[in-house]
Amino acid sequence: MDKRTHYKIFTDPIHGFISVPKGIVLKLVDHPYVQRLRRIRQLGLGYLVFPGSEHSRFSHAIGALGLMQRAINSLREKDTTITRAEHEAVLIGILLHDIGHGPFSHTLEQTIIRDFHHEMMTLALMRKLNEEFDGGLSTAIDIFTGQHPKTFLHQLISSQLDMDRLDYLRRDSVYTGVNEGSIGIDRIIKTMRVFQGNVVIEGKGIYAVENYITARRLMYMQVYQHKTVLSGDKLLASIFRRVRDIHTEGGTVPMPSPALGFFLKTYPSAKKGLTSRITENYLRIDDNDVLLSIKCWQDAKDPILADLSNRFLNRRFFRTTFVKKRISANEQNILIEKTRKALKDARLPHDEKSASYYLFFDELVNEAYRYESEGIWILQDHNTAIEFSRASETGNISALTKAVVKPYIVHLKDLVL
Amino acid sequence: MDKRTHYKIFTDPIHGFISVPKGIVLKLVDHPYVQRLRRIRQLGLGYLVFPGSEHSRFSHAIGALGLMQRAINSLREKDTTITRAEHEAVLIGILLHDIGHGPFSHTLEQTIIRDFHHEMMTLALMRKLNEEFDGGLSTAIDIFTGQHPKTFLHQLISSQLDMDRLDYLRRDSVYTGVNEGSIGIDRIIKTMRVFQGNVVIEGKGIYAVENYITARRLMYMQVYQHKTVLSGDKLLASIFRRVRDIHTEGGTVPMPSPALGFFLKTYPSAKKGLTSRITENYLRIDDNDVLLSIKCWQDAKDPILADLSNRFLNRRFFRTTFVKKRISANEQNILIEKTRKALKDARLPHDEKSASYYLFFDELVNEAYRYESEGIWILQDHNTAIEFSRASETGNISALTKAVVKPYIVHLKDLVL
Amino acid sequence: MDKRTHYKIFTDPIHGFISVPKGIVLKLVDHPYVQRLRRIRQLGLGYLVFPGSEHSRFSHAIGALGLMQRAINSLREKDTTITRAEHEAVLIGILLHDIGHGPFSHTLEQTIIRDFHHEMMTLALMRKLNEEFDGGLSTAIDIFTGQHPKTFLHQLISSQLDMDRLDYLRRDSVYTGVNEGSIGIDRIIKTMRVFQGNVVIEGKGIYAVENYITARRLMYMQVYQHKTVLSGDKLLASIFRRVRDIHTEGGTVPMPSPALGFFLKTYPSAKKGLTSRITENYLRIDDNDVLLSIKCWQDAKDPILADLSNRFLNRRFFRTTFVKKRISANEQNILIEKTRKALKDARLPHDEKSASYYLFFDELVNEAYRYESEGIWILQDHNTAIEFSRASETGNISALTKAVVKPYIVHLKDLVL
Amino acid sequence: MDKRTHYKIFTDPIHGFISVPKGIVLKLVDHPYVQRLRRIRQLGLGYLVFPGSEHSRFSHAIGALGLMQRAINSLREKDTTITRAEHEAVLIGILLHDIGHGPFSHTLEQTIIRDFHHEMMTLALMRKLNEEFDGGLSTAIDIFTGQHPKTFLHQLISSQLDMDRLDYLRRDSVYTGVNEGSIGIDRIIKTMRVFQGNVVIEGKGIYAVENYITARRLMYMQVYQHKTVLSGDKLLASIFRRVRDIHTEGGTVPMPSPALGFFLKTYPSAKKGLTSRITENYLRIDDNDVLLSIKCWQDAKDPILADLSNRFLNRRFFRTTFVKKRISANEQNILIEKTRKALKDARLPHDEKSASYYLFFDELVNEAYRYESEGIWILQDHNTAIEFSRASETGNISALTKAVVKPYIVHLKDLVL
Repeated sequence: MDKRTHYKIFTDPIHGFISVPKGIVLKLVDHPYVQRLRRIRQLGLGYLVFPGSEHSRFSHAIGALGLMQRAINSLREKDTTITRAEHEAVLIGILLHDIGHGPFSHTLEQTIIRDFHHEMMTLALMRKLNEEFDGGLSTAIDIFTGQHPKTFLHQLISSQLDMDRLDYLRRDSVYTGVNEGSIGIDRIIKTMRVFQGNVVIEGKGIYAVENYITARRLMYMQVYQHKTVLSGDKLLASIFRRVRDIHTEGGTVPMPSPALGFFLKTYPSAKKGLTSRITENYLRIDDNDVLLSIKCWQDAKDPILADLSNRFLNRRFFRTTFVKKRISANEQNILIEKTRKALKDARLPHDEKSASYYLFFDELVNEAYRYESEGIWILQDHNTAIEFSRASETGNISALTKAVVKPYIVHLKDLVL
Repeated sequence: MDKRTHYKIFTDPIHGFISVPKGIVLKLVDHPYVQRLRRIRQLGLGYLVFPGSEHSRFSHAIGALGLMQRAINSLREKDTTITRAEHEAVLIGILLHDIGHGPFSHTLEQTIIRDFHHEMMTLALMRKLNEEFDGGLSTAIDIFTGQHPKTFLHQLISSQLDMDRLDYLRRDSVYTGVNEGSIGIDRIIKTMRVFQGNVVIEGKGIYAVENYITARRLMYMQVYQHKTVLSGDKLLASIFRRVRDIHTEGGTVPMPSPALGFFLKTYPSAKKGLTSRITENYLRIDDNDVLLSIKCWQDAKDPILADLSNRFLNRRFFRTTFVKKRISANEQNILIEKTRKALKDARLPHDEKSASYYLFFDELVNEAYRYESEGIWILQDHNTAIEFSRASETGNISALTKAVVKPYIVHLKDLVL
Repeated sequence: MDKRTHYKIFTDPIHGFISVPKGIVLKLVDHPYVQRLRRIRQLGLGYLVFPGSEHSRFSHAIGALGLMQRAINSLREKDTTITRAEHEAVLIGILLHDIGHGPFSHTLEQTIIRDFHHEMMTLALMRKLNEEFDGGLSTAIDIFTGQHPKTFLHQLISSQLDMDRLDYLRRDSVYTGVNEGSIGIDRIIKTMRVFQGNVVIEGKGIYAVENYITARRLMYMQVYQHKTVLSGDKLLASIFRRVRDIHTEGGTVPMPSPALGFFLKTYPSAKKGLTSRITENYLRIDDNDVLLSIKCWQDAKDPILADLSNRFLNRRFFRTTFVKKRISANEQNILIEKTRKALKDARLPHDEKSASYYLFFDELVNEAYRYESEGIWILQDHNTAIEFSRASETGNISALTKAVVKPYIVHLKDLVL
Repeated sequence: MDKRTHYKIFTDPIHGFISVPKGIVLKLVDHPYVQRLRRIRQLGLGYLVFPGSEHSRFSHAIGALGLMQRAINSLREKDTTITRAEHEAVLIGILLHDIGHGPFSHTLEQTIIRDFHHEMMTLALMRKLNEEFDGGLSTAIDIFTGQHPKTFLHQLISSQLDMDRLDYLRRDSVYTGVNEGSIGIDRIIKTMRVFQGNVVIEGKGIYAVENYITARRLMYMQVYQHKTVLSGDKLLASIFRRVRDIHTEGGTVPMPSPALGFFLKTYPSAKKGLTSRITENYLRIDDNDVLLSIKCWQDAKDPILADLSNRFLNRRFFRTTFVKKRISANEQNILIEKTRKALKDARLPHDEKSASYYLFFDELVNEAYRYESEGIWILQDHNTAIEFSRASETGNISALTKAVVKPYIVHLKDLVL
């Protein structure tokens, strides 16, 4: 028999050829739940700052699967036993790890469902798929939830040094053109081993890990928390909050996407679990629903909604300003008044609530590396592994473990702070 | 004064930093007409085959502008005079060269407007912008339409070796991961000169041109005319034709995008020019309108429309089969009958018209290099330039100039040909 | 046991990590015969034109071995049986395929030994190693000489599409910066199969092969047969011929390298095989012997030798001029006279023999692809393979098979032709 | 006139096309002093560990010149005035900045001349060239020695962030394949400005600088101070010390390179300046002299010299072991005895002096970033610049400024420590 028929080959700009095994893994790739990820951008609003970074969560999922194939090969070469069933399960786990994301994920999650986190949805969808595939995902779910005895398989999917992060840091770095963020994927995977049941890095890989931590920090600073991305996120959240508020106040807004309408009109809570109505509607929305709705709302009767939507589409964004310390209540009030004045000048409603769509006080927390919970472990010799920030020669890594808090204001561009 | 303020810098994965001059050029970049291109994928359905290639026409437009900056610098270094006004105009020309494209361009153009070609729209939009900017685009339009006395400026925007093609071949090659398509952009630009008013390539650049022609051919074969892309295009066209047909037959279909609805309900003609109604609605549609509509039509009452939409979203595509020679009428009839039988088995309408949404006979024409009209010219010495296919040492390039015609059938996967 | 200890990892700029199996393969890598290749530049005088291309035959040998590992994996995935012993043997074969090269190989081979070709030396050294390793290279030698029953193993080492060429084309392309020469190694290896005992390329790989042929042609034109390389080669050959001639005439020349001295003083013939004296001395010379000798000969008493050596070290090279057709005897005489005049003006000996060190008539033969002997075969369907130039859609490839002959003259720079 | 004739174009794998202005700059490139750098490897013995890194100091010099061209352009775009003469001078300065290096530089400097540092030679050679070029290098020398009023020009040649380091970190990273060492050259150059007469980095470039510092640290750890490189350096030094000692003891050693012989026989001092005899002989030696001599000494009568030379050529290197703290005199004595025992077993002379060629105690000092003397300065706003390690948000950079001292032993492989 011809083994070619065992794999479908994808061509990827980051990792080259990626072999996806036929059978359940390929069926899952072609499943509507996964195909939906093609319509959700990986970097949310990042493409507005970095024109080349229009890649989707789907290409990231395929890429992470490709890295998992390499990691499995590398561990097997070092005599770690991974059965065929475990191999398949861990591929499924990484393929589906982001399946619960919604459009413009980190921004919108809280805006459309209360008490919700996308990981709840990921698990719910995995379970639905497990039924559909007659239990074929049981091992994958065990690995994903950390209940499989081989802990290292879980760590390959979710840890400080998992295939998810290795893929997205490299992918986002290439697509944005921010090459400072490049990381030595090959070396990290090549120096991975299983030691006492856990993924560790061999001693000679320590500099690659140090570089990875620094690269991650740089990507946060230059891409994920870029000022324009932060202000775009606030604008997007304002638009959705405004739609919800109009409904609460008894008004109506045209809804080109019924599924998105469901969330904005009812604002359901996930506290008691995900109802099938939530899940079904959630599966129907993607970036297209959001963008088409905003296009439509440019012509809304509500002047604030129309203004916000118009700003979004024509890039008249707010401005982000970082400040040294948190804004006091008094300073906040002064800015609120200034914002109201600016709205008045623009002949827009300018009560305090209206101003709340145009002014935000928030803060970033950036921690390049967190060691308390799990950390990255470095093999020192054949008998011991020590936590990375203690293995590093200089103190610079333990310095990186300290969280940096940066307060910021998002405000109208003309506002004098 | 600080010259930094003269440019906005974009970061691009293909060309690195790209400087866009502030003033009219940056204003055009931020204009809704150009921003719309962010929502139209460069490769149409190509992303369904090459997961990494989800880039938009916007990133291509910025990239081509970046190359134009380099080409201008290179020609100036060789003492070609290009005034500041011409520099600005040629940047505008390349930035806007694709502004008239609609979503999934080559597929849908004919399906939504009769007697239409996207270049008509490009020119119409340039003229609208020229009014808006008080004549600021007049020189750009002259260059674009070939009426400016310096012919070489037009050739940099549109010829066998223009910045448009240099950018998209390289960009599409990188994003798809089809590295065979790489071309030596730097060498081509470095060996460009103006000779007797035309862009020519210095003798030592001839191998770079030969490589460019071959690379282009490979990109056609492996990407632009990939079998799955061809069959996806037919499926998309069928969906739109089906919607139009339902309306013609007096039925109705839900229209989440009013602008797209305008075209499908009225199927206007561009024969007598582009009315403002056509233009306004055209500017409102992008990939999102198409994809959201198809998502909606999955639940259409019309069984064929629902089936086609469902196929599109869940990747149950048709199959493309290349054949040695054109299909005879007799063979066509046999395949039509087989298609009707398959539709009947699937409990779908199976009259001859219904079959026409599921079966297509077409052919590709692939010409890697066309020399009759314009060609690429190679400088032989300081006095003469000769056409490229005659300058090449071997006969292989003149062989490439011969068009290859490849007939093909797009059909249901299970159909036995 | 720990499999890590089975391999030594080399880091390579072209192919990333390369695993060399411990045991005989690694022992051969560390053997003086192979280490000698570190001191012989891959591109001969090419580094004088492309400053970045200073890589050695050793790095090429390791790179080709890395590709062989990948090719073996790829063929095994397609169910071709390759035993462990064959795997080891084919790695040895590719590692040693260039072991018989001398310094500045193609130039000097004929200049230091009569009736010699480096492949004779390669085989002789393999046999010596086979004795040293108690028959451990027997299978490798069988494969190398085409006597092993599995023909495809020989083809992986030596054919139109072997690992040798795949590595050096890519490596030379990267190191010279001539990116037009890039080839799709991954795709070629991925589409390789064994069919009826021979290496063939699957149908979908045909464009990658077409690209490879074109890339190879470009590398010949832009790098391997670069004008300055051609003239440098002639200068080098002149230097060595001059030393030989001085000895023939009864003079002496200082010899900092005794091994090189052996060849220049005795000019042995390989017609009756390679004596142990030839082999031993041959193994002792590398680029260093040549360059150090030339440095020394700058101060030689013989004015021609001193002048030629000085020219070589200070880059006062001859000039290469391509001409449309072969130079007639009459034209040659005119150029000889002009050369003698120039030598006289430079107060150098200027008899006819002296002129012969300064003037050369030669021709290039460039054949991008030769199909008569073996050719590249493309799998059409599961039953047939056809030769590549017939499988290609356009006639451009068969055009490439026609050899191009280009006569040229190498002469003093000031000479008016 | 044709501006093409103003430049000679070099093709470089790292930076693409590099334009070298004709006139004095190109004449210096072709000068024997600079051409000599072609025969000196940039990474000394690094090529023995990283087979791809066989590049020379010449390609680095050309690359650094290419970066200087870009830096000058970037600063001029920001309205810094740099005259034509200063432009030429700073190109000359960077081209010649390493001209005084000898073969295997850091190892051999002290071994062949007492009280010598290669920068003394660099300046001496610049002055010789200045005479030869009738004062054409005066401004270049002023910039190089820090006496030109525009301090920033000196800083572009020599500071914590000069074109020398930017080139070699990137070049060495690519050629070794250690991609973790990649740095964002483009961003660093793009964010450079002159502020109050000094080179500073704009605020938005701070992450690129952070990345550069980390990358540099990694290159030290993984490449420049690789264990095998350290032990190879010691072996090389031993060989030369042994030759010197044989002479001191009244013996003789064959000297294929008279120039190298001069140094080893006389061991001159540079305390009172560089005599013309020192300079002339120094200019005659390069990697070839060293390697050819060692090949010759394999057959030396002195058993230690023969053994050391044989070890070097056949890669029977010593082993490097890092230790936690400095070795006490007592521990040293134990190791000396063990070494003597091993030499005895190998039937080599085994007195204490003999052992000193086979055992070394040394330490590394690695400081990724030093801020006391000069530091890198970051522009905070339009009025102030602050030193980098204070500008960084986290404490990790100030941690990097602490020097790390690592003691190590180089010893025979079989020695049990």
